[in-house]
Amino acid sequence: MAQKEYTVDNTNLDKHISQSFNEELETIKNQVLAMGEVVEQQIADAVESIVNVDKELAKKVVAIEDDVNVREVRLDELCVEVLACRQPAAGDLRMILSATNIIRDLEHIGDEAEKVAKMSLTLAKKGAAPGGYEEVRHMGELVHTMLNSVLDAFNRLDVTQALAVAKADKKVDREFKSAMRVIVTYMMEDPRSIKRAMNIITALRALERMGNHSRSIAEHIIYLVKGLDVRHTSIKEIASKLGQ
Amino acid sequence: MAQKEYTVDNTNLDKHISQSFNEELETIKNQVLAMGEVVEQQIADAVESIVNVDKELAKKVVAIEDDVNVREVRLDELCVEVLACRQPAAGDLRMILSATNIIRDLEHIGDEAEKVAKMSLTLAKKGAAPGGYEEVRHMGELVHTMLNSVLDAFNRLDVTQALAVAKADKKVDREFKSAMRVIVTYMMEDPRSIKRAMNIITALRALERMGNHSRSIAEHIIYLVKGLDVRHTSIKEIASKLGQ
Repeated sequence: MAQKEYTVDNTNLDKHISQSFNEELETIKNQVLAMGEVVEQQIADAVESIVNVDKELAKKVVAIEDDVNVREVRLDELCVEVLACRQPAAGDLRMILSATNIIRDLEHIGDEAEKVAKMSLTLAKKGAAPGGYEEVRHMGELVHTMLNSVLDAFNRLDVTQALAVAKADKKVDREFKSAMRVIVTYMMEDPRSIKRAMNIITALRALERMGNHSRSIAEHIIYLVKGLDVRHTSIKEIASKLGQ
Repeated sequence: MAQKEYTVDNTNLDKHISQSFNEELETIKNQVLAMGEVVEQQIADAVESIVNVDKELAKKVVAIEDDVNVREVRLDELCVEVLACRQPAAGDLRMILSATNIIRDLEHIGDEAEKVAKMSLTLAKKGAAPGGYEEVRHMGELVHTMLNSVLDAFNRLDVTQALAVAKADKKVDREFKSAMRVIVTYMMEDPRSIKRAMNIITALRALERMGNHSRSIAEHIIYLVKGLDVRHTSIKEIASKLGQ
């Protein structure tokens, strides 16, 4: 993904007079996007490591996890600092609260990418799973696109695009269920492959959870821009609330 | 669990002059504890429903999930309102931020309890799994105790007890791994049981995640009381930071 450029779009947020406050909000947004790019790369690398049995790449994904954790903690600190010193209200408050929620989701996606990479290392050691690699690649592409798109929606405060990402999560869930059926069939045909099949299932489940977290980020964006809490709400209801 | 009583203990928090602000903080704390009790009951009921093949109890757990979601959204609204109107600093700010994080973890635990209840319904319909019920009961007891204890630690702002809960999560992880080994053996012995075994694995994994979320709540309590961010930190390091 190319380096993202952005300008803080305050059309939907409240105006405030402090220039340095503006800069702080911009820094937070920038750093969320930067953390997002690292996690995007983690997904791509984790999937490639399992599909191509690339141990070095898997180790890289595991190693980068510390960096993601440090980013989460530092960004959280920054958000608390701005909350304490600036005492923001309305849209600015929502921006900071959304940022803290989004970085939590990003950190969880990083954790799940690490799990995929660890399964890649296990499979490289114990021998290939009886199948599921094509499914890992396909689900990996889906969730990578979701994360890329939802970060872009955050950058541009685009609720329509955020809604599209929330919708896409259903596709990931369907793919996961279908992949599970395929792998259970392999296990029944060859019980000796069960342990290795369980590793690929762990990887698929991790990808499915990345989809959930991307949807969660989409919901935070809708909250940020519209002030609507759309958790626990069906896509149809969200669309109707957004007038779409 | 008996109804919890508490008084807001501000010895570690900053003093503030507004009586009604105090009451708002007390309301938030009270409502977090009340939500926690509902979720505790969800865990106990979900585990019992799977062990005793009790479909009615499983349906109750699924039905109560809406209530938990509503509590999460309302409590979050209240926290944002207090943040916006009171513009709290230091310990008060940490109390509100911790509360928003804790209710998120509680909601996730409720989600996982719902998953266990759904697996209970599936197994009631498709026939028993080849094993794993004792493991569900045992892990269920562990995570129920963890949640009960961490809510009590939140009530009393007790970091020592929070640390003990964080430690207990390791035990849950070990139990999960051991349960997985047992069930994989069953699957290899009787491949026809694989689908049903996968359902009990889903339940066990849900319990394992409840342990993670309880540990996460413990970390938020340490942040609340001590101002220390102890995520991504080993138990040994946390204990050392707390001088324990």
